[in-house]
Amino acid sequence: MSEQKTVAIVGGSGYAGGEFLRLALNHPNLKVTQVTSERSAGLPVTMVHPNLRSRSNLKFTKMAELQDADIVVLALPHGSAAKRIAEFEARGRVIVDLSADFRLKDPEVYRATYGEDHPAPDKLGEWVYGNPELHRAELRDATRIACAGCFATSVILALYPLLKLGVLLPKDIIATGLVGSSAAGASSSDASHHPERAGSLRVYKPIGHRHTAEAQQELPGNFPLHLTAISTPRVRGILTTIQAWIPDGYSDRDVWSAYREVYGQEPFIRIVKVAKGIHRYPDPMLLDGTNFCDLGFEMDNDTGRVVLMSAIDNLGKGTAGHALQSLNIAHGWEETLGLEFTGLHPV
Amino acid sequence: MSEQKTVAIVGGSGYAGGEFLRLALNHPNLKVTQVTSERSAGLPVTMVHPNLRSRSNLKFTKMAELQDADIVVLALPHGSAAKRIAEFEARGRVIVDLSADFRLKDPEVYRATYGEDHPAPDKLGEWVYGNPELHRAELRDATRIACAGCFATSVILALYPLLKLGVLLPKDIIATGLVGSSAAGASSSDASHHPERAGSLRVYKPIGHRHTAEAQQELPGNFPLHLTAISTPRVRGILTTIQAWIPDGYSDRDVWSAYREVYGQEPFIRIVKVAKGIHRYPDPMLLDGTNFCDLGFEMDNDTGRVVLMSAIDNLGKGTAGHALQSLNIAHGWEETLGLEFTGLHPV
Amino acid sequence: MSEQKTVAIVGGSGYAGGEFLRLALNHPNLKVTQVTSERSAGLPVTMVHPNLRSRSNLKFTKMAELQDADIVVLALPHGSAAKRIAEFEARGRVIVDLSADFRLKDPEVYRATYGEDHPAPDKLGEWVYGNPELHRAELRDATRIACAGCFATSVILALYPLLKLGVLLPKDIIATGLVGSSAAGASSSDASHHPERAGSLRVYKPIGHRHTAEAQQELPGNFPLHLTAISTPRVRGILTTIQAWIPDGYSDRDVWSAYREVYGQEPFIRIVKVAKGIHRYPDPMLLDGTNFCDLGFEMDNDTGRVVLMSAIDNLGKGTAGHALQSLNIAHGWEETLGLEFTGLHPV
Amino acid sequence: MSEQKTVAIVGGSGYAGGEFLRLALNHPNLKVTQVTSERSAGLPVTMVHPNLRSRSNLKFTKMAELQDADIVVLALPHGSAAKRIAEFEARGRVIVDLSADFRLKDPEVYRATYGEDHPAPDKLGEWVYGNPELHRAELRDATRIACAGCFATSVILALYPLLKLGVLLPKDIIATGLVGSSAAGASSSDASHHPERAGSLRVYKPIGHRHTAEAQQELPGNFPLHLTAISTPRVRGILTTIQAWIPDGYSDRDVWSAYREVYGQEPFIRIVKVAKGIHRYPDPMLLDGTNFCDLGFEMDNDTGRVVLMSAIDNLGKGTAGHALQSLNIAHGWEETLGLEFTGLHPV
Repeated sequence: MSEQKTVAIVGGSGYAGGEFLRLALNHPNLKVTQVTSERSAGLPVTMVHPNLRSRSNLKFTKMAELQDADIVVLALPHGSAAKRIAEFEARGRVIVDLSADFRLKDPEVYRATYGEDHPAPDKLGEWVYGNPELHRAELRDATRIACAGCFATSVILALYPLLKLGVLLPKDIIATGLVGSSAAGASSSDASHHPERAGSLRVYKPIGHRHTAEAQQELPGNFPLHLTAISTPRVRGILTTIQAWIPDGYSDRDVWSAYREVYGQEPFIRIVKVAKGIHRYPDPMLLDGTNFCDLGFEMDNDTGRVVLMSAIDNLGKGTAGHALQSLNIAHGWEETLGLEFTGLHPV
Repeated sequence: MSEQKTVAIVGGSGYAGGEFLRLALNHPNLKVTQVTSERSAGLPVTMVHPNLRSRSNLKFTKMAELQDADIVVLALPHGSAAKRIAEFEARGRVIVDLSADFRLKDPEVYRATYGEDHPAPDKLGEWVYGNPELHRAELRDATRIACAGCFATSVILALYPLLKLGVLLPKDIIATGLVGSSAAGASSSDASHHPERAGSLRVYKPIGHRHTAEAQQELPGNFPLHLTAISTPRVRGILTTIQAWIPDGYSDRDVWSAYREVYGQEPFIRIVKVAKGIHRYPDPMLLDGTNFCDLGFEMDNDTGRVVLMSAIDNLGKGTAGHALQSLNIAHGWEETLGLEFTGLHPV
Repeated sequence: MSEQKTVAIVGGSGYAGGEFLRLALNHPNLKVTQVTSERSAGLPVTMVHPNLRSRSNLKFTKMAELQDADIVVLALPHGSAAKRIAEFEARGRVIVDLSADFRLKDPEVYRATYGEDHPAPDKLGEWVYGNPELHRAELRDATRIACAGCFATSVILALYPLLKLGVLLPKDIIATGLVGSSAAGASSSDASHHPERAGSLRVYKPIGHRHTAEAQQELPGNFPLHLTAISTPRVRGILTTIQAWIPDGYSDRDVWSAYREVYGQEPFIRIVKVAKGIHRYPDPMLLDGTNFCDLGFEMDNDTGRVVLMSAIDNLGKGTAGHALQSLNIAHGWEETLGLEFTGLHPV
Repeated sequence: MSEQKTVAIVGGSGYAGGEFLRLALNHPNLKVTQVTSERSAGLPVTMVHPNLRSRSNLKFTKMAELQDADIVVLALPHGSAAKRIAEFEARGRVIVDLSADFRLKDPEVYRATYGEDHPAPDKLGEWVYGNPELHRAELRDATRIACAGCFATSVILALYPLLKLGVLLPKDIIATGLVGSSAAGASSSDASHHPERAGSLRVYKPIGHRHTAEAQQELPGNFPLHLTAISTPRVRGILTTIQAWIPDGYSDRDVWSAYREVYGQEPFIRIVKVAKGIHRYPDPMLLDGTNFCDLGFEMDNDTGRVVLMSAIDNLGKGTAGHALQSLNIAHGWEETLGLEFTGLHPV
């Protein structure tokens, strides 16, 4: 097909790269030509991503052997992509970075957030923040896509319509994220050791979560945003509850309306607010492998407090799905192409 | 498309029916026209199968309102399909039964296994046992398909090539199945209460598992087959280890050869036997939502003992996937149609 | 021993009653003489509480057969204890109620919280709220002990010293509780069905949690308190994170000091705030079976936000442990008697 | 108390050493004077064993600083204890080794099993295999106790009475062990990485398990014993199902009788075989932190097959509990001292 584009995945032995590989292998317009991994070079990708057995015969190569491709997807540890970005730009016309390197527009904010100077501050302006719901227009024909962070995505998508349309008071907003273990990556550590983690509910970032900067950059208005992150026994998924306040005279209908107005046509946003049954609100259990962001809310009329709920697959809508949706837009393809998986139940 | 067939799912609020519904909704040649549920009639299917939100607007109807369809899929409790089979036959040309009602050929075996007379013994001969690997030829143009049992499938697929080609001694064969909680169905009970089940390793059928009869019917030769079933904290999936013995003069190469000879062209059978790494053998973790049966083995050369390993998704290759693969064959469609999902990792 | 007191447990087939039974059987000064259960009358208690095999030969009796005992522990569903309280008062000198019936002092608050009039409002003043850290003096020689609610306990213990000593601003305080499945009791339901619950992160009470009233009654000062409750895949345990604000000029040392001043001598409160390692903050994983409440905190100096963390076993310090600690105080026994279990690691 | 003995734990930062430490701290006749760890020397033991917070102020020391103690407990990796045994013997009168180093009597079997020569073969005769049920008499006044292996214990305790009393045919016996992740120790690895392990049912030792040698040494008679080990999502616990055959003319009553005859007075063996309810057979869920071995069985009268079931906590009766029980016997103390914990339910 004339439409088919070649893709090289750099750093493809991690979870984000692996998930993008899975999606790309099933995408009709993409052809994966290369997957690099320094640690696993020479091995079949199925040694690391065993779910791809019988689906792919690719072997990992060294990054030094990177060939030209229409699209280069960077799935490297934080800081690595920016340092060698010229190298990757020489290889492909479209670059997608799954790391945090090119998400923040302001080098000062980057420094405050990541504790060091950005390696390529002059490039920051070239990148589009890879959130289709907020940046669809810019994503069309984009050639530099900085994939949004997973926890940030769950926060941004829940808050954006309400802040944009003035349905929230400009006071402290508090987001508590329950995060699966895959968000910490594919490398084992004391913290990820199964006996220490399987039964744990571990507050790993009560304050100072780096995605605060992303969320504040993307969200309209000026308000204090506070994030707390807790790891759970799940492998995938983020459930974020957000505590915010609605102005006097507003009600939960205004929340509904804001979501409808802004997300009414969105293919991957679902408002989940069911009066009965056990699946009344967003739940990451239903989202493994999907590109959905499920949003829900409940309002306390006595106090004006609204509790927003947001669920995603951190590797799907939180990373690789988001990236593929952005690529679909950038190429003018059907936005849902390769992202049709509905999720499983029960699971 | 002229190829498109209509499907009605009877008893579609359970897990098997729900999984078939999910698959059918994503199948290009199938159009689901009706899903019945006595308990949930009138409710949207997404109340019970929340993963289908935004994918389906169907509502459950009563069984009494069943309309004609090209294909009728029966996902009823054991014994229910056979009692009313004439009713369903009047509605569709092709009938697929996901229950155990039409799997056994011999009414005597049925009686010994299920403790009562078969309600329609004269019909038993019309049904094809819905295991594509063993019955592909009969499935072509079949109009009565009795979907194989999940534990039975994991046992049959592991043993069939070896028994067929004489690679096993005709002595006691022992299969131990580790089964997820979804296999017990969608109705809550004391045994399925989360606090009682989440941490449990519960031997629920040390002897007397009913799938023994199915497996013995389908497998060549005459040998004692012993099943033990244990429930695990997983929701989906069966891992079966089988202990058997290889004749003198045979080696693990003969096991390899037998699997290759019989399953070399099978789209959904994968031999998983990797020398290194952590994913060396079949693992149901990788198979949620897929139609694969992964097979592995290891041989103890000192004793001739071979340990066969078999993993499936009990709702996929164990039930609904199997059924859809059989339907694809029956209609002359590409056998993998609608069954392309590779599975997730990590998850 | 002259010290030994007899105990009857009414409604002893639930989880709270079962945990109290376990503790009482191992308590040197208690002798369990009777355990009632309408559903399981006649059966050995080990049918329902299999962990007590070889420890107890008791059989459940009907409530109608309740005999006199020094202490009567009521482990009945909400509303049941208050309706028949005279009956139980006739049986024992000391009554401990594990339900919510006698926790609230104000019948109006009770009605607002539970949606019906209190069955015995004139009795409310006789009961001591069974939280030893706040009510130790009143518990000495108490004969009516209303065991504190589990989520309420996790909130109260984290906030009490800070509110008492003025270390928090009187603005909105938000508590998010992650709760294990045992908190919903021993009866199975759709919500507790393992396949629906095992992988779920389910917001079950975003607003309107009934324990708000308890917490507000017990905590000093007047401030808006907001609770959100989420169920997790754990069976036991509550992890509560609380978002609050510290006045200008205060720092995390003031939080430390407040906890030390108020809880310095408490045998079951531990401040967990470790600079390194993976066990830096409270984690319910470590508390199964114990009577500890672990407290931690982290402060964001830029905003004055403090995140308090509180972990308990909902059946231990959240119910039965708390009750036994209160009974120890009431009888003048060593407060830790029968509550020495340290918890397991790993587990 | 004149009875009190001092204990030093060598290699106390692992899970076996940590569990022994927990038990010893709660034992009235033991006083832990030292815990060594090369990796964590200088740190409080609670950094590694956070469940001991408020219970112990001990800090880890280097092994080189080992002081004299009445009892030296070795919790070192396989092979380490035997190489330096003289050093440890110089420090304490009673030595307990939790590793495999001194379990096998025959150096040839050791070599065949562990692939290298035993470092101190002449010492092997001095050690008692630390299984109280089989070696109680030898354990009295023993000064060298080689703690039995965890999987081996679950196999031996299930089979011993039946083999001793001739209730099993001398044909192939097959044991399938479902093992928790703590059995692989406290060091993280790719295999223990939570995202790879949490959902996995991983056959890690289909053949060739090293505990086969131990079990064959300890069990009467000459028969082929086959072990298969599978890792499960649990952290603690082993559930072993054993497939064996009963001679003609025998029935399940003979199994009962054999267990009763041999184990009738055993404080830590419980026969679990309940006709009704959900807790019919042994389940490791109930045994975390306990020293129990629960045994059950079911017989297939048509074939003479008997399925034995055995559950333990691998760190309890499988390691540290077993060791403490042996020490109690060796010192003439009440055998259950410090081992009274009943286990939790639900959990």
